[in-house]
Amino acid sequence: MHLGKEHSHIENDPNYKGLIVNKGVEQPPSVNPDAARRFLQKRPQELTLAQYVDGILAGDITILSRAVTLIESSLPKHQELAQQIILKCLPHSGSSVRLGITGVPGAGKSTFIEALGLHLIEKGAKLAVLAIDPSSERSKGSILGDKTRMESLSSTPNAYIRPSPSAGSLGGVARKTRETIILCEAAGYNTIFIETVGVGQSETAVHSMVDFFLLILIAGAGDELQGIKRGIMEMADGIAVNKADGQNIQKAQLAKTQYSNALHLFPPTRSGWIPRVETCSSILSEGISNIWDMVEEYMHKTKSNDFFNQNRREQAQYWMYESINEKLKNNFYHNALIKNKIAEIEPLVNSGQISSFEAARELLELYNKQV
Amino acid sequence: MHLGKEHSHIENDPNYKGLIVNKGVEQPPSVNPDAARRFLQKRPQELTLAQYVDGILAGDITILSRAVTLIESSLPKHQELAQQIILKCLPHSGSSVRLGITGVPGAGKSTFIEALGLHLIEKGAKLAVLAIDPSSERSKGSILGDKTRMESLSSTPNAYIRPSPSAGSLGGVARKTRETIILCEAAGYNTIFIETVGVGQSETAVHSMVDFFLLILIAGAGDELQGIKRGIMEMADGIAVNKADGQNIQKAQLAKTQYSNALHLFPPTRSGWIPRVETCSSILSEGISNIWDMVEEYMHKTKSNDFFNQNRREQAQYWMYESINEKLKNNFYHNALIKNKIAEIEPLVNSGQISSFEAARELLELYNKQV
Repeated sequence: MHLGKEHSHIENDPNYKGLIVNKGVEQPPSVNPDAARRFLQKRPQELTLAQYVDGILAGDITILSRAVTLIESSLPKHQELAQQIILKCLPHSGSSVRLGITGVPGAGKSTFIEALGLHLIEKGAKLAVLAIDPSSERSKGSILGDKTRMESLSSTPNAYIRPSPSAGSLGGVARKTRETIILCEAAGYNTIFIETVGVGQSETAVHSMVDFFLLILIAGAGDELQGIKRGIMEMADGIAVNKADGQNIQKAQLAKTQYSNALHLFPPTRSGWIPRVETCSSILSEGISNIWDMVEEYMHKTKSNDFFNQNRREQAQYWMYESINEKLKNNFYHNALIKNKIAEIEPLVNSGQISSFEAARELLELYNKQV
Repeated sequence: MHLGKEHSHIENDPNYKGLIVNKGVEQPPSVNPDAARRFLQKRPQELTLAQYVDGILAGDITILSRAVTLIESSLPKHQELAQQIILKCLPHSGSSVRLGITGVPGAGKSTFIEALGLHLIEKGAKLAVLAIDPSSERSKGSILGDKTRMESLSSTPNAYIRPSPSAGSLGGVARKTRETIILCEAAGYNTIFIETVGVGQSETAVHSMVDFFLLILIAGAGDELQGIKRGIMEMADGIAVNKADGQNIQKAQLAKTQYSNALHLFPPTRSGWIPRVETCSSILSEGISNIWDMVEEYMHKTKSNDFFNQNRREQAQYWMYESINEKLKNNFYHNALIKNKIAEIEPLVNSGQISSFEAARELLELYNKQV
């Protein structure tokens, strides 16, 4: 759009009546050339395997984060490098306490993690907080997506917070998180929290990679439980009844008694540990140390009866098999011909026109012809 | 061996001093020729597909049993015929009540099944009792292996009792049982019990093929629960506290209250149904009708909110996918090279020398090179 004659032209034209645009002052460059140079220098360079491993073992958070990004990447080149890093880190991993934390949204999980995390860091711990939330792609990261949820913790040097890997299936997300545990442990984090939302399948995955599984509930056994998936309560090694503060204290105590009685009816755990219920207030940081005492007692008990090591070995095997099974299924279900055939055959199964097993047989026959 | 001269020779020889064998009376044939002829006539002839289907639809127990034997056979020829029979029976199946029954040995499962079964048959039901017990090959059929466990029921014309298929993996056993359900329904059985022992993985399989899942417990929440697998209680749509008789009545009532309170703490089921606890005495046949009332109430509720149909559709899909996944895994893990490699790599995973995921990758690479 032409708003007026250029100043230089009209400067010497006394008859000009139009809009006069004054010559402006030269604008400073929008980018500080010094800063740009520094930024370019700081830009991630390709690191060698040795640089990654040394950096992680030295506890360098930036390098740790970049290695985790490799784990999360789907590029084959990145995956290969990630596997080599993990292999080198494995001998330096394994000596942490791995704590799974679940609870429905609204139970105060992040406040709890912040309170417990700060308590442990005060006692000298190095804490990594990871998450498994396969829905995070859809929900744009419902948990740990926003570090500001744990403001104090995320500004503490001895805490490393990493949101859930967002891509893909539960199996994929779980694999990435489990590999990240190894790197975090090699980087010196002696306490690992794995957060998850107690509404999906992900609890089983988390349960299979932690030593202790903690369920966060709130007082009033009614509507608050609506979102918790059936079966999760039986997985718990401990329950924390959160928000036991102010007018809630009595209700929380009552809930504690009720849950204790319920847990008492469950068959004993394989660990020989009897799950316990404690109340706490994350906001007031009250009762938080009791909950950690429970975890430590559990660790002591399972390390002396050797369940701890046995469980870790079984978990390692579990993940090997899980990982194979996941891949076998992916290959099958991502096959284009199979996809089409499933779309065609599923309605017939639903309406009882062919049996589930005959449908499976036809699909497998089609698949075997191809590979 | 020659014991003496033949009678005919020595008859006319007065000087003979040796052993004389008297001519014997001709023995009657050890096989009654009439019976043998009848037996040969009755001996299973190869039936045609149409004969199988017509027989099943006419409620012929002998033909039904032979068809189930085809389902259980591992011969490809039998499998193919079985699938054709199932296909023809499918349109005539689906209209029964499918009840899963679990409980540890000692809870009185078979007495309970007998009591409930006779109660239903008296009311006009046709009952098929099936079982899933993948351990039965090893334990020589710990459940339903011996029909004499349910004497009165097994001598009732309207009851069909079939022990657990004994061969192979849980997936295989479960498939066979699920296919047997179809044939039983087509044969006019309007009530199907699937029995399982509450100690293994099989409950999930049973839970995925029944409408209502009943857990049998006994009074005294202590040692009796030792054997029940964690997680099973949360699957139950109802609990029967059995052996509520004699001096046990009060204990059973107390147990009922405790379990009710515990169930109340669980999150609601997807069906919208609130699981209930009832006491009963199978030996005295007391309280048995209450338990069936509970099942009928459940059926009414889930049929009116459409959970019933939705659940059945989901179950059909579940079995299609389960069946595929099972087969994919079988192909992999039964591969000879893979077996050797697993034996080699598992100790490395256990001792943390290589990561679970790297081990999985190597195994898959080896497998893909072959197929």
